[in-house]
Amino acid sequence: MTVASALHTSELVGRFSKPQGFGDATLRSPRTDSIELLGGIPDPEVLPVAELTAATERVLLRSGVPALQYSRTEGITELREWIAAREGVSADRIIVTNGGFHGLSLAIQALINPGDLVAVDNPIFPLFLRGLELATTNILPVPVGAAGLDVDALEGQLRAGVRPKALYTVPDFHNPTQGSLSRPDRQRLVELAAQYGFVLLADNPYRELYFGTESASYREFNDSENVIHINTFTKTLGPGLRLGWLVVPNWLRSDISALRSRQDSHSSTLIQSIVAEALTHEETLFDATLDKARATYRNRAQVLATALETETQGALDIELPNGGLFLWPKIVSDRIDPQKLSESARSHGVDYQQGAFFPSGPGTEAARHLRLSFGHVSEENLKEGARRIGLAFKDQG
Amino acid sequence: MTVASALHTSELVGRFSKPQGFGDATLRSPRTDSIELLGGIPDPEVLPVAELTAATERVLLRSGVPALQYSRTEGITELREWIAAREGVSADRIIVTNGGFHGLSLAIQALINPGDLVAVDNPIFPLFLRGLELATTNILPVPVGAAGLDVDALEGQLRAGVRPKALYTVPDFHNPTQGSLSRPDRQRLVELAAQYGFVLLADNPYRELYFGTESASYREFNDSENVIHINTFTKTLGPGLRLGWLVVPNWLRSDISALRSRQDSHSSTLIQSIVAEALTHEETLFDATLDKARATYRNRAQVLATALETETQGALDIELPNGGLFLWPKIVSDRIDPQKLSESARSHGVDYQQGAFFPSGPGTEAARHLRLSFGHVSEENLKEGARRIGLAFKDQG
Repeated sequence: MTVASALHTSELVGRFSKPQGFGDATLRSPRTDSIELLGGIPDPEVLPVAELTAATERVLLRSGVPALQYSRTEGITELREWIAAREGVSADRIIVTNGGFHGLSLAIQALINPGDLVAVDNPIFPLFLRGLELATTNILPVPVGAAGLDVDALEGQLRAGVRPKALYTVPDFHNPTQGSLSRPDRQRLVELAAQYGFVLLADNPYRELYFGTESASYREFNDSENVIHINTFTKTLGPGLRLGWLVVPNWLRSDISALRSRQDSHSSTLIQSIVAEALTHEETLFDATLDKARATYRNRAQVLATALETETQGALDIELPNGGLFLWPKIVSDRIDPQKLSESARSHGVDYQQGAFFPSGPGTEAARHLRLSFGHVSEENLKEGARRIGLAFKDQG
Repeated sequence: MTVASALHTSELVGRFSKPQGFGDATLRSPRTDSIELLGGIPDPEVLPVAELTAATERVLLRSGVPALQYSRTEGITELREWIAAREGVSADRIIVTNGGFHGLSLAIQALINPGDLVAVDNPIFPLFLRGLELATTNILPVPVGAAGLDVDALEGQLRAGVRPKALYTVPDFHNPTQGSLSRPDRQRLVELAAQYGFVLLADNPYRELYFGTESASYREFNDSENVIHINTFTKTLGPGLRLGWLVVPNWLRSDISALRSRQDSHSSTLIQSIVAEALTHEETLFDATLDKARATYRNRAQVLATALETETQGALDIELPNGGLFLWPKIVSDRIDPQKLSESARSHGVDYQQGAFFPSGPGTEAARHLRLSFGHVSEENLKEGARRIGLAFKDQG
């Protein structure tokens, strides 16, 4: 076999960082009975599996089997119209994607030049920073507090003359910190974007998974020409579909399409057809699915929080989230080393994400937190996971 | 609504050309009874629809419904192993993609820097040039003859000191010219790639659709560290799946994965699971599907060629292809204007791709050709389409 010594990859892939921490498989417990509280994974029991199966049969029975043929870059009409009605925008502003992360990657590539500054959540969903490497690594971390992105801090930077090209934030049930932006802060963000000429990337995968009252409005995002609003069926109908959407401002529609058409043409017509058929065949399906999801995840959050209170005996400061798929408790005592705690927990057979994986810059207490996912974990295993975390604290204590 | 006057797209999307000709919807006949001989579309009757439906039911019944969950960037194990066995390589060299075009786009972005020279087929599958705009527009057109890429011409350029970073060609049933590279030419291409330090992008979507004897070996491609071998289920199981694969050289595996993971994470787990289940549940399914496809397309090629002979009364020089989904007849008389012929054909209710859309540089006779697709068109419509093309010739005559 020829040794390809003269061959080189592109500068683009040469610039990619080596992933560390978050998502690193070497940080998983080798125990086969390990309880994994790692990812934002929906529970299979909550997904409308029977309805998706029945929808598949129906779409594959259609004359000419259009679900197996090419379709438009922007997505099939039935799906775009369903999403558009839900978002309250015209269907030509909807671009169907292969999930939320794909939407982010398209937005990044359509907007950001090498070296451009991008303002980002701090702490942040770490995979965004990996996706951002498609264009730049030049970031402005903006603090995230109990009510989401600190808009005052952002405004201070903007007034001081800092000019990001875009701002990335998760407005509802922030990953990892679980806060949600208030309605006035949404309005201010959109106004700042218009005033200072940047694009807000509003990444909203958890929006529908509220436990109490509906999350704050997203009208502000969809009404602005300065926002790309990113969403996905990942947390509601299943990550394995790889199906999401963008609400794009009018001035970006054709450029995002041109980019998409040069990368992978369009999302699977079959997947789009199955989901559109399931959602339109039975009008109540999506909301019924969401109701079930909300009840399940609200209950699991409560079960995990209660079990952790008991098992760690006050070693964690736990705030119940109002939605989403994560708990973000803080280690109370400074004497506990979070890294050692995590290793000990792993040896006891429970894996979670260390808070230290989430800062995008200095100034956070994220390293003192644990990110615990509960969406796909049974009550029994949540209790057992909490017990094992309790054992880990005892080891450190 | 805010006017986003200060906002700009990235230089990347700003460099994209405005698509003209190939794939331009304005060139379609407004007649509703128009016969479309435009795209390389498989016949729905040939696709294993019932088997895909049954496979979907089975995968969605599995405990925990893994088909609806996240999976690995490179693809699910069952599918990679099935493909790897067919390609005769180890499974870790297989990267599952969202179809052949997606494989090309990943290869382009992983290898090519802005301004890099890329050698390409002339005439060429025009969408490749659009995908190449993700990295460069600097191309070296290499003539394609009756036996595929002219390897002598390429070697002459290389000896003269031209140094492309990559070479793009369709080795089997070339699109649009229908030739196939001989086995010695495949070997020479791979040797030239190693000698001169470029990567061969071997784009092989039609490989399995041979009408007579099997197409020439692809062993040369898979044995070389200088080749990315691109394939897809698009022409065999359906374009709407958006499912294909790359056979990548070992030195590129991790970089292609890193790129893919930053763009859309992974191909739909559900689509991968359905296809893997269908292909492995019944071992003979894929070959039986191919046998049916080959017989159907061979017959349709013959029907269309015969009808054109009759209807155009010698105005076209028609060569029967040995595989694939296209006829590439040449207009015999220089007095016929191909553009006017196409317009006239459109007014008679038949649409095809003008040969003029396919050159990547000067020196071809492509503009004197018609590219006629026959895969998804019934015998009756092929005959009627030929009759309408005959009428168009009479108009010009």
